[in-house]
Amino acid sequence: MTTETLLTDLADGVLTVTLNRPDRMNAYTAQMGVELAEAFQQADEDDAVRVVIVTGHGRAFCAGADVSDGADSFGGGGAKLFGTRTSETRRLKGGFTEAIFTCRKPSIAAINGGAVGVGITMTLPMDIRIASSTAKLGFVFARRGLTPEAGAAWFLPRLVGISQALRWCYSGKVFDAAEALRGGLVSEVTEPQDLLARAREIAREIVEETSPVSIALTRQLLWRFAGESDPLAVLAVDGPINLTLGSTPDVREGVAAFLEKRRPNFASKVSTDMPPQYPWWDRS
Amino acid sequence: MTTETLLTDLADGVLTVTLNRPDRMNAYTAQMGVELAEAFQQADEDDAVRVVIVTGHGRAFCAGADVSDGADSFGGGGAKLFGTRTSETRRLKGGFTEAIFTCRKPSIAAINGGAVGVGITMTLPMDIRIASSTAKLGFVFARRGLTPEAGAAWFLPRLVGISQALRWCYSGKVFDAAEALRGGLVSEVTEPQDLLARAREIAREIVEETSPVSIALTRQLLWRFAGESDPLAVLAVDGPINLTLGSTPDVREGVAAFLEKRRPNFASKVSTDMPPQYPWWDRS
Amino acid sequence: MTTETLLTDLADGVLTVTLNRPDRMNAYTAQMGVELAEAFQQADEDDAVRVVIVTGHGRAFCAGADVSDGADSFGGGGAKLFGTRTSETRRLKGGFTEAIFTCRKPSIAAINGGAVGVGITMTLPMDIRIASSTAKLGFVFARRGLTPEAGAAWFLPRLVGISQALRWCYSGKVFDAAEALRGGLVSEVTEPQDLLARAREIAREIVEETSPVSIALTRQLLWRFAGESDPLAVLAVDGPINLTLGSTPDVREGVAAFLEKRRPNFASKVSTDMPPQYPWWDRS
Repeated sequence: MTTETLLTDLADGVLTVTLNRPDRMNAYTAQMGVELAEAFQQADEDDAVRVVIVTGHGRAFCAGADVSDGADSFGGGGAKLFGTRTSETRRLKGGFTEAIFTCRKPSIAAINGGAVGVGITMTLPMDIRIASSTAKLGFVFARRGLTPEAGAAWFLPRLVGISQALRWCYSGKVFDAAEALRGGLVSEVTEPQDLLARAREIAREIVEETSPVSIALTRQLLWRFAGESDPLAVLAVDGPINLTLGSTPDVREGVAAFLEKRRPNFASKVSTDMPPQYPWWDRS
Repeated sequence: MTTETLLTDLADGVLTVTLNRPDRMNAYTAQMGVELAEAFQQADEDDAVRVVIVTGHGRAFCAGADVSDGADSFGGGGAKLFGTRTSETRRLKGGFTEAIFTCRKPSIAAINGGAVGVGITMTLPMDIRIASSTAKLGFVFARRGLTPEAGAAWFLPRLVGISQALRWCYSGKVFDAAEALRGGLVSEVTEPQDLLARAREIAREIVEETSPVSIALTRQLLWRFAGESDPLAVLAVDGPINLTLGSTPDVREGVAAFLEKRRPNFASKVSTDMPPQYPWWDRS
Repeated sequence: MTTETLLTDLADGVLTVTLNRPDRMNAYTAQMGVELAEAFQQADEDDAVRVVIVTGHGRAFCAGADVSDGADSFGGGGAKLFGTRTSETRRLKGGFTEAIFTCRKPSIAAINGGAVGVGITMTLPMDIRIASSTAKLGFVFARRGLTPEAGAAWFLPRLVGISQALRWCYSGKVFDAAEALRGGLVSEVTEPQDLLARAREIAREIVEETSPVSIALTRQLLWRFAGESDPLAVLAVDGPINLTLGSTPDVREGVAAFLEKRRPNFASKVSTDMPPQYPWWDRS
């Protein structure tokens, strides 16, 4: 499928979303933000999607906000970059960040080239980041007079620790994939031609070996309690959930497959089979 | 001492708790959960216990939940695994997780072999994890149709970062001690025959060099503020506590020993000598 | 400038604060705490200061609390160490910890030698820690009958993870710079003679390449949201801030410099140009 800024392709349970403004290094626009949010919302709702991969078309992953309007690109209400976002994504005030965060399917950023500014912060709410050895990354905001956005102040310190997060954001410099790996921003670096195959290999293990409802709950449990103060509050959620799951066909199949030393064949659907405890939070 | 599922041994201030169902790879049952909680409650109350070590009898540490009832092991209210837990541990709604978390004595998991499912999540509220080079670990929940439990959604991301936590929980695969070390789940890997000696060496340094009340407060301060939002809230606690401690015999002994370049001999007891600021939280 | 316990020097946008009780290994006193808080408050207010470097005069960085009164150093209300602090720093109940935490300028600890007890905890609210290869560090509190202070229970686990934080605090031992680097407490180790030059090099990149207001906001965003539970709460702050910044001269200059491949020349002042969203928190 093709939208104004994205290519999407669904195969073997994996939705591949490709940022598709290759003549502009896939630079971010408000329209791309809306379409990215919509892609994740659809992935959340479509049981055929088990995992989302996000990558870029051409040399870059995403070169940051589109500054083709020159020095005024962010000015005058920033219509091209910010202005229309609020009105067009009525369902999600938090735009693509909220869409990725609330999605019940795991996501993998396959960073194939330059990823700076919003081009890297958009990957932070995703679950797994791997990069091509040719990728260049940068939290360049302070060199443009801006600050980290899209929730990066929350996500980045949790992903790489606050010391490393501050170093990258204070410097504003562009760094290579090896530094991103050392600093914990990406978990693997591959040769450029192997990147997408590796992302699909990671996705395939999830698709073939795990229960859709288990993965959806795991994703929400780990992210939602990442900032909670009281560990004992988790016990009031994870106990009842597992007690409920214990009587489901997925658990019977999972235990049987384990005992029979075969691959499980899970039938649960995220759209209909989430336990009654979900969602356990209240963000009213 | 022997209970239905545990061996316990107290020597030189160190309580060693050994999971003891070797014919079942020390598989977890509700009874084991109750006895583990009780062991930690007793350790909390007994001034003779300065450090707790948990290990497994035989080849395994703990092979996860006992699935000897086959595919239905988690079903029908899960009596064997969950059902009786609530009623039998009336004092602690949070079971062994709460007992370990609230214990004022540090704990060391000496992972001698397989530790999967609840076999590894039970170690997360402990303070130090070391493993034998032969250990196999796994957050296998999603391959069984279940989700991480026993508070793992809170503990695991804090121990290894959310990226690594998600990778292990999404994959559900079993991994070796070297991967556990690289990922930060264990802090040391030893040869199998050296594991318990190393755990005791770590414990001995605490017993011989530190103040019991200091260690109890340190444990609660670091864990309790791990999820607190405001750093300045800590100052309202740690300042008054140290001001109070400043006039105690332990501090006089600690400073004197330091100035005299000798080992300190602390006399404080956790049962009677905690400062009036403890407990400073309110979980009513 | 010279105060009772500090030397301060401002050059090229960098305020160097040198702990200056070399005959006492720069041991901490209440007076040093007050003066350190004042130095950070002045740095916060003075637009000429872009970055703060803290180091020690002579062989030590800071040998911990001054125990020249012997075993009673912490007793009797601890006047020398604690007693006067509250009355003398009326503006900041949280003393130097609060002054460093709330400062809108980044800080670099250049740990030139021994840094134990409060000598290391005072560096935790700073942003970057680098050490000389000869530095010795230690969270020695439990060997003195005390507990971690100055907010260390909040800062240390966020900087190095709770496992490493507990190991160092339980042991109480003094460790070398290489262990501090492996554990993530410092981000770089240099030869002794290169330490200050390296700290200044890190500072210079900030001074020359970044917007003062951007850096001030980045510092507060990352630290203030480090403990917040809901990532979507950040979006309500970082979106409006960047939208406001988008029309400022700094952003026009930053984008123009980027497009013209030259170094930017930012004119914003922290004292007058913070966006109306700052401060967005309420600690009333």
